[in-house]
Amino acid sequence: MKNVYVTRRARFNAAHKLWNDDWDAAMNQEVFGKCANPNWHGHNYELHVTIKGEPAPETGYCMNLVELKDIIKERVEDPIDHKNLNLDVPFMKGKMTSTEVLIIAIWEELEPAISAKGCRLHHLRLYETENNYADYYGGA
Amino acid sequence: MKNVYVTRRARFNAAHKLWNDDWDAAMNQEVFGKCANPNWHGHNYELHVTIKGEPAPETGYCMNLVELKDIIKERVEDPIDHKNLNLDVPFMKGKMTSTEVLIIAIWEELEPAISAKGCRLHHLRLYETENNYADYYGGA
Amino acid sequence: MKNVYVTRRARFNAAHKLWNDDWDAAMNQEVFGKCANPNWHGHNYELHVTIKGEPAPETGYCMNLVELKDIIKERVEDPIDHKNLNLDVPFMKGKMTSTEVLIIAIWEELEPAISAKGCRLHHLRLYETENNYADYYGGA
Amino acid sequence: MKNVYVTRRARFNAAHKLWNDDWDAAMNQEVFGKCANPNWHGHNYELHVTIKGEPAPETGYCMNLVELKDIIKERVEDPIDHKNLNLDVPFMKGKMTSTEVLIIAIWEELEPAISAKGCRLHHLRLYETENNYADYYGGA
Amino acid sequence: MKNVYVTRRARFNAAHKLWNDDWDAAMNQEVFGKCANPNWHGHNYELHVTIKGEPAPETGYCMNLVELKDIIKERVEDPIDHKNLNLDVPFMKGKMTSTEVLIIAIWEELEPAISAKGCRLHHLRLYETENNYADYYGGA
Amino acid sequence: MKNVYVTRRARFNAAHKLWNDDWDAAMNQEVFGKCANPNWHGHNYELHVTIKGEPAPETGYCMNLVELKDIIKERVEDPIDHKNLNLDVPFMKGKMTSTEVLIIAIWEELEPAISAKGCRLHHLRLYETENNYADYYGGA
Repeated sequence: MKNVYVTRRARFNAAHKLWNDDWDAAMNQEVFGKCANPNWHGHNYELHVTIKGEPAPETGYCMNLVELKDIIKERVEDPIDHKNLNLDVPFMKGKMTSTEVLIIAIWEELEPAISAKGCRLHHLRLYETENNYADYYGGA
Repeated sequence: MKNVYVTRRARFNAAHKLWNDDWDAAMNQEVFGKCANPNWHGHNYELHVTIKGEPAPETGYCMNLVELKDIIKERVEDPIDHKNLNLDVPFMKGKMTSTEVLIIAIWEELEPAISAKGCRLHHLRLYETENNYADYYGGA
Repeated sequence: MKNVYVTRRARFNAAHKLWNDDWDAAMNQEVFGKCANPNWHGHNYELHVTIKGEPAPETGYCMNLVELKDIIKERVEDPIDHKNLNLDVPFMKGKMTSTEVLIIAIWEELEPAISAKGCRLHHLRLYETENNYADYYGGA
Repeated sequence: MKNVYVTRRARFNAAHKLWNDDWDAAMNQEVFGKCANPNWHGHNYELHVTIKGEPAPETGYCMNLVELKDIIKERVEDPIDHKNLNLDVPFMKGKMTSTEVLIIAIWEELEPAISAKGCRLHHLRLYETENNYADYYGGA
Repeated sequence: MKNVYVTRRARFNAAHKLWNDDWDAAMNQEVFGKCANPNWHGHNYELHVTIKGEPAPETGYCMNLVELKDIIKERVEDPIDHKNLNLDVPFMKGKMTSTEVLIIAIWEELEPAISAKGCRLHHLRLYETENNYADYYGGA
Repeated sequence: MKNVYVTRRARFNAAHKLWNDDWDAAMNQEVFGKCANPNWHGHNYELHVTIKGEPAPETGYCMNLVELKDIIKERVEDPIDHKNLNLDVPFMKGKMTSTEVLIIAIWEELEPAISAKGCRLHHLRLYETENNYADYYGGA
């Protein structure tokens, strides 16, 4: 058994704000500070998607990264890139758009598509800025 | 005469869209593509501000970069960071929010404040993404 | 249970040397090479601080990163930044200033302050240069 | 017990192609796409080598990184750098030159030399491009 | 007149060797060192393409970067990416494949296509590694 | 005439402080802030050295970058790396150790050695941190 972890990086640019509809504007401002700007702000997000598996003898691949790239494009980049996370993205409807909640939602979009290829999603990393990022391993 | 060029980097996160109000939605979509998303998108912008001058003998400084940092914060970061470039930023009112137009507007904000300190703004660089950026030298 | 790992990056610039007072200069030179330069050398250190936790439903946050930023500033940046690790930093007194020993000492400074907020420090990464870095998980 | 993980980064530039000799050219093209270009292509590889151990009290080191640097140079950089992975590298003879297979082969070159110093290899990361990389922990 | 300089980054991975056919192997080895490895080596090249112009009032663009991206793809990436610079690339036939010669050849490919759009190519930067790169301004 | 600009990157780690001996400690603290820490601080400096010239037909080189690398090592890295800029570096004796003054001093070290090879030094860039850097073109 020789598991290798293979990662593909993707990028998308999106607008969002941190806002809890159960709170008034003052409370949102107090908790989220400038991230609660009513007219939105935005980020260049960077996503790292890691697959765990053994390399196939005939290809040397854990997974063909072109297939992984296509899954990421269809399931994440197309619905998110150059969009508003709070308003435009079906899988974020009714959710907070913090990096933490977004990375869980992206996992739930990617995991079934990767499993359907017989592969195993192991890890996501999502950079919101060069100073802030989140990691997710499916909840463990 | 020994001119040195000194640069300070700053960062801000903002939402925007590329949209010409004289055109209908279809035309905006055709020209600007996904950058015309009606609900905005956003970026982590990175700004490089370059001063030209001779180092003062008693300090070795062309300009005290703490002063430059403060000017950038007051004139650029405070009005832009975590804001919507189209809606929230006084010096972008009525302007396209392309990187080209934004970098000219930032120059016009910074140049008088830097000149008032007896220093000379030489160059700005503004990254919109890791793949796209603009440079400006005051129009030359 | 859906744990997410959230990271905040910080930076500080410090002088140090690797020197064992029980050894003579020749022995220090032999073991530590140019890192034992008597008049010090220095680095731009980069620190990544990772919190483990479940996002709170009302905020989407594992931990408010502004609070984490403030803890890092008070406990690490203020005592270390623009200082001499061997001479100026109380929590490094009498210790070797290798990246390994420094990362353990930083953990011991940060961990109680993060725990006091009800959060859990999971991981530190400390870059000494672009080619050398250390990771620490509390000793495991 | 206070384990720290210490990493040294190395780089090498090499040519390769992905090609399975049991298949004809059309099949190789179909599976590997442009990576199967008959006349090769190449990469700037970046390798991160991580040692796990407790810092020695007299040095503060898990391992002297100069020794680790020398091992990486002798066992990896000298045989691989500015070479053709398929044709020139003894430890890749008869193997696919995917990132996955290469990282396992590099582990098998480094691990005995690091163990011989009484140290423990914990992790390798190998970047093929800024968008694609592999991690390996000895097969676990 | 307010000229702005706008840059698009592209990347390609290629094999090459430095080899002068007028010299024997020993002379090539002496002059080019490991860059003369007979079986090739390779790089992840990074290309920055800079356009000079005034932003158009109706778009805020000096040039639509999607058009520039398409020109770079057709004229540079398609013929070079995942290819052998010495053997596979029509516009490098009979030329040395140093970074200096390559950047001039790329200019000559890009310049007419950019001019045909009514735009002006100002500057190219070509990274061969993180430590080595070339700049070209059309020969000035 | 087809001038190309070729750059080699180098790095060095050094301690320094900003301190004017004609001033008392309070004045130094006021002007230089935390950069005046009496026990020094330090940086990972990054230096870019750019040569201007026409590629030689037989090599495709403006200058053999191995020769340039050796000059940088002998004239800059050996005297500066892992040293104290204020105390240990002959060519900084009696000078302020600001990035501005340092980049001029490095130019004066490199320029004669590069000229002696028949080549032309065009530009230096010196990063003190990721946020601060200086450029120098020989005083123009």
